[in-house]
Amino acid sequence: MPGEFDLIARYFTRHAARDDVALGVGDDAALLRPPPGQVLAATVDTLIAGVHFPEQTDPADIGHKALAVNLSDLAAMGAEPAWVMLALSLPRVDDSWLHAFAEGFHALAARHRVALVGGDTTRGPLSITVQALGWVPEGQALRRDGARPGDGLYVTGTLGDAGLGLAVLQGRAEVPPQYREALCARLNRPEPRVEAGLALRGVASAAIDISDGLAADLGHLLVASGVGGRVALDRLPRGDAVRAADAHGRLALTAGDDYELVFALPAGQERALAALADRLPPLSCIGRVEAEPGLRLVDADDNPVAFSHQGYDHFREF
Amino acid sequence: MPGEFDLIARYFTRHAARDDVALGVGDDAALLRPPPGQVLAATVDTLIAGVHFPEQTDPADIGHKALAVNLSDLAAMGAEPAWVMLALSLPRVDDSWLHAFAEGFHALAARHRVALVGGDTTRGPLSITVQALGWVPEGQALRRDGARPGDGLYVTGTLGDAGLGLAVLQGRAEVPPQYREALCARLNRPEPRVEAGLALRGVASAAIDISDGLAADLGHLLVASGVGGRVALDRLPRGDAVRAADAHGRLALTAGDDYELVFALPAGQERALAALADRLPPLSCIGRVEAEPGLRLVDADDNPVAFSHQGYDHFREF
Repeated sequence: MPGEFDLIARYFTRHAARDDVALGVGDDAALLRPPPGQVLAATVDTLIAGVHFPEQTDPADIGHKALAVNLSDLAAMGAEPAWVMLALSLPRVDDSWLHAFAEGFHALAARHRVALVGGDTTRGPLSITVQALGWVPEGQALRRDGARPGDGLYVTGTLGDAGLGLAVLQGRAEVPPQYREALCARLNRPEPRVEAGLALRGVASAAIDISDGLAADLGHLLVASGVGGRVALDRLPRGDAVRAADAHGRLALTAGDDYELVFALPAGQERALAALADRLPPLSCIGRVEAEPGLRLVDADDNPVAFSHQGYDHFREF
Repeated sequence: MPGEFDLIARYFTRHAARDDVALGVGDDAALLRPPPGQVLAATVDTLIAGVHFPEQTDPADIGHKALAVNLSDLAAMGAEPAWVMLALSLPRVDDSWLHAFAEGFHALAARHRVALVGGDTTRGPLSITVQALGWVPEGQALRRDGARPGDGLYVTGTLGDAGLGLAVLQGRAEVPPQYREALCARLNRPEPRVEAGLALRGVASAAIDISDGLAADLGHLLVASGVGGRVALDRLPRGDAVRAADAHGRLALTAGDDYELVFALPAGQERALAALADRLPPLSCIGRVEAEPGLRLVDADDNPVAFSHQGYDHFREF
């Protein structure tokens, strides 16, 4: 384990371990006791300074977001998060930065009862890789490939807030001052939809989280399921600020970093979904799954709307 | 999952999945079926260009080593490797680089029957984080904290080769030409001692892999166990090239990147160890565990040898 330097132990072990952690930070590997009869869900995501966040972002926000994007992936599988590992590359040891980063990380971890069980710190350009492990009962995971023609398409919460927040921060957009803080919070402190993912087990036929924009991520779900879809632009859920800035819904369709869930609901499951209302954020039915491949956008009168877009891709400039 | 861009799917999914992989690369998370009655061992390690390897290192070597250092951590726990995830940050998409990197990675993975089950690729400075998962029966893990006074101290293989290889590559040392290739292979293609780790379950009382140098890593083991140790410099196992370059054993004591195992053996277990000879690399008894904290070095006549050294620490220059 090159270069550990005890930073992980110093900054990241303050919380009591879960009783399924046999051995946490400090050995060559963590030792974990999986619950019987469940399937392990494992995901990894990296955030890099200058690519995923501006270099000067509040380190507490970076700590929050590095964990949030991984918990969001588990949420999209319907998995219950349990354990995470942190690989942190830092240009230098900066105590106040590390303290704030750890605060942001741990506050979110504590809310989801997630234990940090290991990690690695190295000298290098600022970069954070988190690997998250969780559990889902056999056969109940929300995969991408289960959507079928006739299923309804739903999203949680509102879309476009994080994208508008980024545009505001970068000086590309202006919003009334009362919206500014909330939009930036959507960008910097996304709330992974863990509870929603758990509630949708056995109800949704497929799900994915929206990190690269609805069109891109829903596109992944439709392709994985071998189907297509129709989405009504006017049904995309938008907050007041996004609605004012984006009358046509393009921001809600393409902006990334919202970390809401989009899922497919088989016909006949509407009542089951309604019964979950108290465990779910506001939901919007935005369209339906169709047999013909591709994503079709329509207006309020079901007329086609042309669009071209590839979502956010970190390699697109090459 | 920001920026995945299908690179993981394109380059890293060629090998057939293990039958305990319910869902591999391509969804929000992998779904894995742990064997019943075992404990999950989880570790993560990062390699960064310019810190852990020169920027121009053969990408096949980088792919090998990024996996090897993680399998070495599992080996040091006595865990059987099963699944790995790869977070790869790249300045640009370079097909020939990715192809070679994937070759190096997969060749080692295939030899240990390890499945790549997920990953994330992002644009950024060249950096590789691998997270490895494996299994060990409850109560049989080789932890760092089990060494007791009177235990013998052993190392696998030879020490100092990788460090001498690095010195040769950097022009800080010269060796007869017939040694050059083997030394560089020790540096660039370390062989994780997976079989040795498995064989030492129930035999060794504590173990750690040697990534930062024997003195540093054995020091971690002794501290974790609340004990000290005595090591005879002349017993440190050295190949011919290292012996010629390093008459006093200092390189074997302090050089990193060898990825051998150092372990403690309770008195009375020598016969059990001897019975494992066909499953183990050459072993050397280098000293013994003592109650008094600290690491004491002695010469062939058991006289103290002074040394000062902190091992390799990626933050030491700050």
